[in-house]
Amino acid sequence: MKEFFKVKSLDQVLEYASGFPHTGTEEIPLSDTLGRILAKDIVSDVDLPDFMRATMDGYAVRASSTFGASEANPAYLNIRGAVYMGQSPDFSIGPGECARISTGGMVPPGADSVIMIEHTEAMDDTTIEVFRSVAPGQHMIEIGEDFKNEEIILSRGQKLRPQETGLLAAFGKQRAEVFKKPVIGIISTGDEVVPIEKSPGSGQIRDINTHTLSALVREAGAIPLVFGIVQDDYDMLFEKCSQALSQSDMVLISGGSSVGVRDFTIEVLSALPESDILVHGISISPGKPTILAKVRNKAFWGLPGHVVSAMVVFSIVVRPFIEHICGLGHKKEIRVPALLSRNVSSAQGRADYVRVRLIEKDGVLRAEPILGKSGLLNTIIKADGLIEIGINTEGLDKDTKVFVIIL
Amino acid sequence: MKEFFKVKSLDQVLEYASGFPHTGTEEIPLSDTLGRILAKDIVSDVDLPDFMRATMDGYAVRASSTFGASEANPAYLNIRGAVYMGQSPDFSIGPGECARISTGGMVPPGADSVIMIEHTEAMDDTTIEVFRSVAPGQHMIEIGEDFKNEEIILSRGQKLRPQETGLLAAFGKQRAEVFKKPVIGIISTGDEVVPIEKSPGSGQIRDINTHTLSALVREAGAIPLVFGIVQDDYDMLFEKCSQALSQSDMVLISGGSSVGVRDFTIEVLSALPESDILVHGISISPGKPTILAKVRNKAFWGLPGHVVSAMVVFSIVVRPFIEHICGLGHKKEIRVPALLSRNVSSAQGRADYVRVRLIEKDGVLRAEPILGKSGLLNTIIKADGLIEIGINTEGLDKDTKVFVIIL
Repeated sequence: MKEFFKVKSLDQVLEYASGFPHTGTEEIPLSDTLGRILAKDIVSDVDLPDFMRATMDGYAVRASSTFGASEANPAYLNIRGAVYMGQSPDFSIGPGECARISTGGMVPPGADSVIMIEHTEAMDDTTIEVFRSVAPGQHMIEIGEDFKNEEIILSRGQKLRPQETGLLAAFGKQRAEVFKKPVIGIISTGDEVVPIEKSPGSGQIRDINTHTLSALVREAGAIPLVFGIVQDDYDMLFEKCSQALSQSDMVLISGGSSVGVRDFTIEVLSALPESDILVHGISISPGKPTILAKVRNKAFWGLPGHVVSAMVVFSIVVRPFIEHICGLGHKKEIRVPALLSRNVSSAQGRADYVRVRLIEKDGVLRAEPILGKSGLLNTIIKADGLIEIGINTEGLDKDTKVFVIIL
Repeated sequence: MKEFFKVKSLDQVLEYASGFPHTGTEEIPLSDTLGRILAKDIVSDVDLPDFMRATMDGYAVRASSTFGASEANPAYLNIRGAVYMGQSPDFSIGPGECARISTGGMVPPGADSVIMIEHTEAMDDTTIEVFRSVAPGQHMIEIGEDFKNEEIILSRGQKLRPQETGLLAAFGKQRAEVFKKPVIGIISTGDEVVPIEKSPGSGQIRDINTHTLSALVREAGAIPLVFGIVQDDYDMLFEKCSQALSQSDMVLISGGSSVGVRDFTIEVLSALPESDILVHGISISPGKPTILAKVRNKAFWGLPGHVVSAMVVFSIVVRPFIEHICGLGHKKEIRVPALLSRNVSSAQGRADYVRVRLIEKDGVLRAEPILGKSGLLNTIIKADGLIEIGINTEGLDKDTKVFVIIL
C-alpha cells in the first residue's frame, strides 16, 4: 500500500470538489430558509409592485401641473380626493388636480408622480399650493419597476439571506425547494484520545476534534454525525468507516498525523468499496498530511490529529467541498483586507496559513500575527482569522496588504 | 399625545441599549453551544497539556546531547526505548540517550526536546545518528504552556465559535451556561398588508416585513415570535402589543411610516403600562421615523413600513440592542475596508446608509453603490452590505476608503 503519492497544491485539491454530487433537494417552509441554498430558479408570476406605489407622504399629481412652481410662484391644484391604504382610488387625476396620498398608497390613474407634503400647503379643503416642481416618476414606483413578471428573481445555488426570504414572501412563496443539508460523519482516531467526560490518564488527551469539527460542520450548513473515537486498529477503523459510508454524505477522520498511522488510514480507506485515493498530502501548512479519498462518490478526509491543523484544513479545504455538495453556486467569499502589523517569514513550496488578530486603529485595519507554537490551542482562540502566504513567497513584509479569512 | 420629540443621533440611541436587562441564563449541552454567549467565566482546573507533549515525529532527547551536531559531525545517541501513544513511558532519558516518539506522545522524564525524524538516521536497533542540534523546548509543548491551571480560559459575554467549543471539550465541559435566546415579538401593521398566502387585491401588498424581520432576528441569535398583521386600529394594536409584552423580551412593530400612523403607534405605545418613549426619530436615512419605547424594561420598536428601511434600521440600530440583551460583551464587529467605486452624495445632518456591492479586481476591493430608488427591494437583494456616510459629510468621493457592514 506504500505507493508514492505526490503532494498536491491547494488548487489541484479544490478542483476535485466538482466531481462529487450535490445532495438531494427538499421543500421547506419559508420560516426555515435562512442560510439554505435554493435548488431551483424562482420566477416571478406578477409585476412587483403591481400598482403604482407612492414612496412619500404627499399628493399624487401630474408632474406637468407642477412645472415652473416655486416659492415665489406656486402652482394651485384642486384636491380630487384622498387615497386610502390598501384600496384602489375610484377617481383619476387630470391636469391641475391632485389627491392626498400616504407612503405605500396606490397612485390614481392619470397621476404620474407624488409631491412631498413638505413642498405644499393646504389652502382649504379643496386647494393646495405647490412650491416645487416634480419630475414624472418621482417619489413613486412604477408597475414592475422592482421586479418584472416572468423574470428570474432568485437563482438555483443562491444562499438565502433575510432579504431573499423577504423577496420570497413578496411573491407569496410559502415554501422553497432547497438542497438537503449533507450529513457529515466524524470519526476521531488515536490510542491517546479519550471521550470528554473521562479524566485523561497520563499521556492521554480529551477528544477535542469531534466537538470542534461538529461545530465547524454545523457552521458550514451541514449536519454532524458523531461516530466517536476509534483506537489505532485496522478492523475497528474499517468497521467505523463502513458504517459512516452508509450513513453519511462525507466523512472526516481526524488523528494519526504520525507517518505510521497515516499509512494505516490510507490502508483502511483503500480497502473500502469503490475507493480511490485522490490526495495524499497538500502543500499547505499546517495541514500537509491531509488525505482525500473518493469512496462510492463520497469524500473521505484524513485530517491532521492536532485540532488547530484540523481547523485550518477544514476552513481552507473541506468547507469548499461541503459548500459544493450543498449546491452553493457563485459563492462570494469576503476576505477582509488589512495591513500586516509585522514581518512574517514562510517556507517556499507551500502555502502557509498564519493565525491573525484584527485590530482597528485610526481607521486602519491591521492583521497581527499571533505568536506562539503552532500546536497551541490558545493561538486559535485568540485569532480572528487566517492569512495566506502564497506558495512562491518567502514571507511578507510589515504593512503588506493581506486578505483575512475570518474564522 | 403630540409632544415634541427631538430627532436623536444614532449614538444617542445606541446608548439606551445598556439600560435594558440581559436575558436569564440556561445550561446547554456542548453540542448546542455554537453562536451562543457564555454567561460566566470558565476557569481551567488543570494545566493544558498536563504532560510534555511531542509536536513532531522523531526522538525525545536532552537538547544538550545534540549541541554541535551537523551532517559532517553527527551526534550518536542510544535508543532507550519507544513511547507509545496514550501511555506514560516507564523510563527516563539521560545524556546521550533518546526515545522514539510520535506527534502527541508523552516526552519521557529527563528529555527536554524532540528532534525531527528527518534530521536523524537509525544505524541499528540501539543507535541513531543526529545531524542537527535542537534547542530545549523545541518540537514539544511544556506542561501548562497552552493554558495554566486556574486561568480564566473563556469570559462571560464571549460568543462561542467552533474553537471555543473545542476548548470547552479540552477541559471536559459537557455543558455550558449561556444566556437564553431572547424572544422577539414581531407585529406587522397597515391596512394595505395581507398575509403572504393571500393574493393581494388592488393597492395591497403581501406581508414581507414579518418574514424578513423573523430571519434577521434568527440571524442575530434570537427567537422570532410572529403576532401577525394588525390593521391601523388603536384597540387592535393595543391588544396585540399587550399580548406581545407578556410573551416577548423585545417587540418590533413595522409599518405605518406616514405621519398619521406614526402618531398612532406612539399613542398605543404610550398607553402601555410603565411606558416611556425614548426615541421618536433618528437622524439616519433610511430609518428616520424609527420609534423606541421602553415598556416594563422591554424595548418596543416602531420600524419603518418599507422593508428596505426596516432592514437597515434593524442592522444598524436594533441588532446591537438584541446583542446587548443576549449578554454579548466586547463585541468585535468586522467592517470590511473597501474603496468607493464612484462619488456618492448625501445630505448633511443625518447619517446615510448606502447599499453597496463588493467587487474584487486585481487585489483591490471596491464598494459599488447600488443604483435605483431606495424603495426597491431589488437594491437590497443585489447588495452585499451598507456603507455609512457620516452625519457631517456632504458626500464621499470616488476612491474614498469606506468600511462595509456586511448584510
